[in-house]
Order: sequence, then C-alpha cells, then structure tokens
Amino acid sequence: MVSKRLPAVILITASLLPSSVSAQQPPQNQGLWSVYEQATKGAKHIDLTHAFAPVQPVWPGFGQAEFKATTAGADIPDYVKRGEEYTYAKHGFVATSYVLTTDQYGTQLDPPAHWDEYGATISDLPPTFAVRPLVVIPIQEKVKADPGYHMQVQDVLDWETRHGRIPEGAVVMVRSDWYKRWNNPKHFNDKPFPGVSLDALKFLHLERKILFHGHEPLDTDTTPTLEGEAWLMHNHFTQAEGVANLDQVPEAGALISIGFAKPLGGTGGYARFVAIAPADWPYGVTVADASGAPLPKQSAPLRRDEHGAMRPTPGAK
Amino acid sequence: MVSKRLPAVILITASLLPSSVSAQQPPQNQGLWSVYEQATKGAKHIDLTHAFAPVQPVWPGFGQAEFKATTAGADIPDYVKRGEEYTYAKHGFVATSYVLTTDQYGTQLDPPAHWDEYGATISDLPPTFAVRPLVVIPIQEKVKADPGYHMQVQDVLDWETRHGRIPEGAVVMVRSDWYKRWNNPKHFNDKPFPGVSLDALKFLHLERKILFHGHEPLDTDTTPTLEGEAWLMHNHFTQAEGVANLDQVPEAGALISIGFAKPLGGTGGYARFVAIAPADWPYGVTVADASGAPLPKQSAPLRRDEHGAMRPTPGAK
Repeated sequence: MVSKRLPAVILITASLLPSSVSAQQPPQNQGLWSVYEQATKGAKHIDLTHAFAPVQPVWPGFGQAEFKATTAGADIPDYVKRGEEYTYAKHGFVATSYVLTTDQYGTQLDPPAHWDEYGATISDLPPTFAVRPLVVIPIQEKVKADPGYHMQVQDVLDWETRHGRIPEGAVVMVRSDWYKRWNNPKHFNDKPFPGVSLDALKFLHLERKILFHGHEPLDTDTTPTLEGEAWLMHNHFTQAEGVANLDQVPEAGALISIGFAKPLGGTGGYARFVAIAPADWPYGVTVADASGAPLPKQSAPLRRDEHGAMRPTPGAK
Repeated sequence: MVSKRLPAVILITASLLPSSVSAQQPPQNQGLWSVYEQATKGAKHIDLTHAFAPVQPVWPGFGQAEFKATTAGADIPDYVKRGEEYTYAKHGFVATSYVLTTDQYGTQLDPPAHWDEYGATISDLPPTFAVRPLVVIPIQEKVKADPGYHMQVQDVLDWETRHGRIPEGAVVMVRSDWYKRWNNPKHFNDKPFPGVSLDALKFLHLERKILFHGHEPLDTDTTPTLEGEAWLMHNHFTQAEGVANLDQVPEAGALISIGFAKPLGGTGGYARFVAIAPADWPYGVTVADASGAPLPKQSAPLRRDEHGAMRPTPGAK
C-alpha cells in the first residue's frame, strides 16, 4: 500500500522519466538541480533563528554584545580619514563593527572545542554540516505542566511510534516552546527551564546516530554540572542552542539547512538554521513567496538605534 | 534520447516507486527526507568558505579582527570572578571573544543595507536563502592571460551553450582561481584583479533572475566607483565575496547551502557556503566520508596562538 504521505519528490520525479526529460531542450547537465526544481523550490521555508542583538538573553557568566558603526581602519586620500565613521551620505556605504564578548550568543552551534581541548572547532566541521533530515520531538505539553521537564528516551520512542525510526545523520530538535520567552532577557534563563536528559542524548547519538540535537533554552539541562553538554562535548558531538520557531515545523519530513559563521578555531557558532518543509505544510514561505531578489525596501531609512543596531527609522535625516 | 548525465535523483527514485516503497516498514511520513536519502547524503560536499582569521586579506579601508579568550561578564559565587578568563582546566570550558571592526570580513554575503539606506539587512533575508542551484562560470583561463579580466555577458552565454539556461533563482559563482592568493594578505587586493562587468550583473539579474552572484576577490570590479556593487545594492540585490574552492565544483548540477551569522540589522554577512555536487563528482566528501558525529579529535590540545585563535598546539601544558 502506498502511504498518502509518499514523498512529493518521488511522485513528481516519476512523471519526469526519460521520455519527458528527453523532450526538453537544455539544461542537459542538471545533476542535483532536480532536487531544487522538484522538491525544495516549492517547499515551505521556516527560519529557526533568533537574530542576535545587543540586548538579549545570554548565560549569566557571559556579557552582551556591542554593535556600532565601522570607522576607517586607515587613511585613504581624498576619501576617508582613519577613525572616521562610514556613512551612506559621505562614503556611499556603511559597515558594522561588533564587540562580541562571547561566541555563545544567540542561536548557536556548539562545537566540541567549547568544552574539550581535543575537540573540533567550528572551522573544523566538515562540509556535510549543510542539509540534513530534521526531526522535531515535541515536549511542550509536558513543559506546560512542568517547566523543568527534561526530554526522556520515552519521548523519542513515542515519536518513533508515530513517524518511524529517526534517520541516521538527522538533526533532532526538541520543541518546548520556551523560545517564546526570548524577548524577556532577564528571565529567559531562570530555572526551572526545560531540558534534555543525558539518557535521551545518549540514545539519540549512540543508538540513532544523529548529527546533533538542538533545544530552545541556552543550556541543555538544569543539572549543576551540565551533565548533558559535558557528555556531548567530551564525546565529540555538537549541539544547537537558542533555537526558535519549532512550533512552525512538522515533527517529521522536513530538511534543515545548517549555516554558521566560520572563524578559524572558533569555540562557538553564530548560527542560522532554516527548516524546509513539504509544500503542503501550512507555515513558511516558498521561493515564489519570497524570491530574495530583489529584496523588499525598508519602510523608512536605516539608522542606528540606541544600541547600535541598524533599524528603519521614520523621520530620519 | 536519455542524457548520460540524467540526474541521479531521478534514476534512483525511479527504482523506488510504490511497490518497493510499500515494502518498507516505517518511516511512514518521510516527506522531503527522500531528498537526503536518495540525493544529498551520497553527494559530494565542498566547503567554499575561507575560515576568517585575525590576519587575512581585508579591504584597505577596514581593519583586522581581534580574537581573544572570553572573560567572565559577572561574578558567579564559588565559580568565577568578573573579568577572569574561562579555561578548560579551571572552569571546564572556554569561549572566544571577537572584536570585529567590520562585517565585510572573510567569505561574506553582502545585503543591500551595506550601500542603501532603504536596503534589506542581513536579518531581513528570507529563509529561502537556504538551498539553491549553483552555477559556476569559469573565467580563470582568461584571468591567466589578463589578471584584470572582468566577466562579460558572452562568458555567461558560452556557459549556457554548454549547459543550458541558467535556472531562475540560482546562485552564480564566478571562478577566477584568485582565491588561491588568500594566504598573501598584503597583496590579495592589489589591482588588477578579476572582476564582473556591470553588463554581466544586469544580465544575470534582469534576464536570468538569479538569487545572487559571488566572486573570489573582495570587490566586484576595479572601477573607481565600484559600479557593479553600487548597482546591485541600490537595486536590492545581494552578492557574495571572498568565495573559495570554486575549482573543485562542477560548472552545472550542484546545489549550494547558504549559511551566515544573523545579527539584527547587520550590514554584512559572515558567511559559509557549501557546494553539494553529484555523487560521481571527483572532489568533496559524502556523509559516509565525514559524518560529523562524532568529530575527529585534535592532534594536540587547543591553545590560543599569538593572534588569539585556538589551534592544536603540540607540547601544550
């Protein structure tokens, strides 16, 4: 029997077997482009990332970031003097300077080097950190009853009863809906907050061989020793923290695009994760909805706000 | 007639039509996971990103970045004093602090806000900046003869003669092999360097409706007004700069995974791009080659080098 949810890519490609392909003019060498044309172009894209900002939740032992205008690093005759701020009006462009007191900031991808002196750094991650199956395990109902609930192996098994075995190499995100408190920086890290049990992490990595797990809070669990993160990092696994919008993603059947800045030897990852869900999923945007070129104009000119971030500013001069 | 280069995804999915799918146990709801299982898991992944570093090529009007150890942002009783450096030995982890004098640094994705006060910022980019078809147009042979060669419309048309029409929404990278000079920071920006002509940019965006183009140098062209970048930014298009390893990617048939850090209102993008090429491509790694979990151990313990970057350090104490 054919599942009603048979992958769209299979159904569509079946209609494109040799006879219809040969009727087309070039492209002759489309290789993996059929994946885009037939599966991901019309898929629903959901950004799982908090934009990081000068004021936001951060672990108490770290500090906030500073955003400010870039100034000239050197004299360029007839153009700019060292130390002068670049402006749209005078120079035709702006740039931004950051003082980032920690790489554990915002939606992040922790490499093992964060905790282990023999661990891989962010620039050591292989290029296969790119596109993976995305599994979303919901614990938000249990968190409503107990904000300190930690995901158990049974939650994983319950997911598998509904959707089948977790694919090897998948990214497994734990949905707690905790991300909705992001705009309350002072209390985002208050305990209790939802976590992931060490047993569940071991099960996901050792039995299901996932790529990494992710969660919405900024710590993996509320144990005094952070036992889950310690086990992951010292066993050379990565993890994602501060993930957003998991309530807008299917539990099964989406892909995840894994992006991050790549500083040499980085011990943390300023990350951007995007879920790519089947075309019939109700949330998210397709390429037709948001092509990205050209991009929409701002409603008002950009100016730096009191924290140094460029924001549309009605009435700006 | 069937092309010998018929997409692998079609050939493979054809063997997985209903009868064989129904013979499987769960997963029942695999949605887009078939894209991974059948097309990208076994594909060749190539990182197109320079890891950014404290000393590297940068536009002369900007400055270098500073990397250093993160220190405590606050007292935590019995654990850390404000200002104390986090260490593996005492605290069980490290973190890194960055002073980034510009967001135009390393392999980057420029949003229109870099030049246009009504332009989209990096945090405005829609989630459809994720996975796209990758086109690589080679000009490296012309650059060998003339280092100041700028890609012309004819180079695009020649590519189309070989591979068919550029897909709408694609990312078009211009291969010049200039990236091989990255380790010579003092002279990377010396003129002449290879560029992209304004006519070619207009053709790619207005006639072919690409998502963005990218190039290996840190500027789009060598005109005094940077006419190409000016046109792109003021017409609300993005562009990639400082791209690497395009000599290891096919001219047609690969996908690109688009990643970047997402600061609120950012006027530049610290990016990471990964090409995903068909399985029979000679360069790159598959998930089987580099699963990413667990990651390899360092050959020696990580310590900060003289520029503040964590590097494996034989004999470290």
